[in-house]
Amino acid sequence: MTFRATVLTLYPEMFPGSLGHSLAGKAMEAGTWSLEAVQIRDFATDRHRTVDDTPAGGGAGMVMRADVLARALDAASPPGDARPRLLMSPRGKPLTQARVRALAAGPGAVILCGRFEGIDQRLIDARELEEVSIGDFILSGGEPAAIVLLDAVVRLLPGVMGNEASGSEESFEGGLLEHPHYTRPAEFEGRAIPEVLTSGNHAKIARWRHEQAEALTAQRRPDLLAAAQRQK
Amino acid sequence: MTFRATVLTLYPEMFPGSLGHSLAGKAMEAGTWSLEAVQIRDFATDRHRTVDDTPAGGGAGMVMRADVLARALDAASPPGDARPRLLMSPRGKPLTQARVRALAAGPGAVILCGRFEGIDQRLIDARELEEVSIGDFILSGGEPAAIVLLDAVVRLLPGVMGNEASGSEESFEGGLLEHPHYTRPAEFEGRAIPEVLTSGNHAKIARWRHEQAEALTAQRRPDLLAAAQRQK
Repeated sequence: MTFRATVLTLYPEMFPGSLGHSLAGKAMEAGTWSLEAVQIRDFATDRHRTVDDTPAGGGAGMVMRADVLARALDAASPPGDARPRLLMSPRGKPLTQARVRALAAGPGAVILCGRFEGIDQRLIDARELEEVSIGDFILSGGEPAAIVLLDAVVRLLPGVMGNEASGSEESFEGGLLEHPHYTRPAEFEGRAIPEVLTSGNHAKIARWRHEQAEALTAQRRPDLLAAAQRQK
Repeated sequence: MTFRATVLTLYPEMFPGSLGHSLAGKAMEAGTWSLEAVQIRDFATDRHRTVDDTPAGGGAGMVMRADVLARALDAASPPGDARPRLLMSPRGKPLTQARVRALAAGPGAVILCGRFEGIDQRLIDARELEEVSIGDFILSGGEPAAIVLLDAVVRLLPGVMGNEASGSEESFEGGLLEHPHYTRPAEFEGRAIPEVLTSGNHAKIARWRHEQAEALTAQRRPDLLAAAQRQK
């Protein structure tokens, strides 16, 4: 079954972008997933193809019109389409690996890329859009965020990663940051690989890695550590 | 002054990607910023152009070699290069709008795109890489994350946004999610624009928007609300 992604955007030329290469690009060629970029402007009805207007109540920027977006959305995702409808927005719920995994298990996604100034709230309410944020920073539009979300999802589709799906992932999902990695050469600029890793003692190595992961998480992301401990 | 971005990657064909269009693309054409994508593989020394090896201590996946990466990094960013050296990694410090703003005020950035299985820790230590995460999810590699970071930075460079830099942004940086937006038409599928927004009473509108922003933040992101209140 093909995972179907439809992206609604004012910049369809931004797609597939990085998703046309490497793992995601090969998976697209193999038919594991498909990507359609829809130009929102094609659903405007005036001769200037207007998609936005000034904010009600005043203020800077422009707001995307509910009626134009509704036409675009309804054409891309008719009644009966089981795919979730997402809106990339810094107001959204932060994206998590758990949400990525759930999306990858589904039939696809319809993704609306807004501009930061925003889209008419009535469209979000009427079409029950799920607002998704990839972080507390501001992008020029939702497009790079949509690419990130799809990249995260596509690598989890059946057959995409092969053996590359590593234990690291489960470690991360367990709520800890990854332990440090080392590989050949044995010495780099006078720095050796930590002795424990070349000891051949697997139990000791596993313990060391877990301790390193816990220490790093405590230092950089105490919020994750607190959440992981609550789950225990 | 041109903001200079250099990206080290195994997939230089992923760049500029979405950064070649819209605001970022125009700013690149205007010389406001430049982007160079360096193929890490060009710095391997064996005839198979090997860049990775199996992890010391065992485990799944492959680890990128410190020596190859050091050569690539030192060639792209010789001694005296004042640009920060970033590593896109889920182990990093979460990217914030404050960090984006600081990067935009500097001379550029050298960005290393790792694979998730990781890169040799000795390279991170020896070159004092700043590990940056765009969120708690896993990508196929650092490339889509680098594009997101650069998109966020470039829109803040002088002249890029013009009048589009909106009050919304300051609102977000003040620690609250954005209030809802509305625009024409006055009625959409039986839904009207909230009356207060058409009242013409600017003080009342400002108060309503602030209340809406606080309510939304409390509902979706109590973590942000707590942080904003600590700052008061």
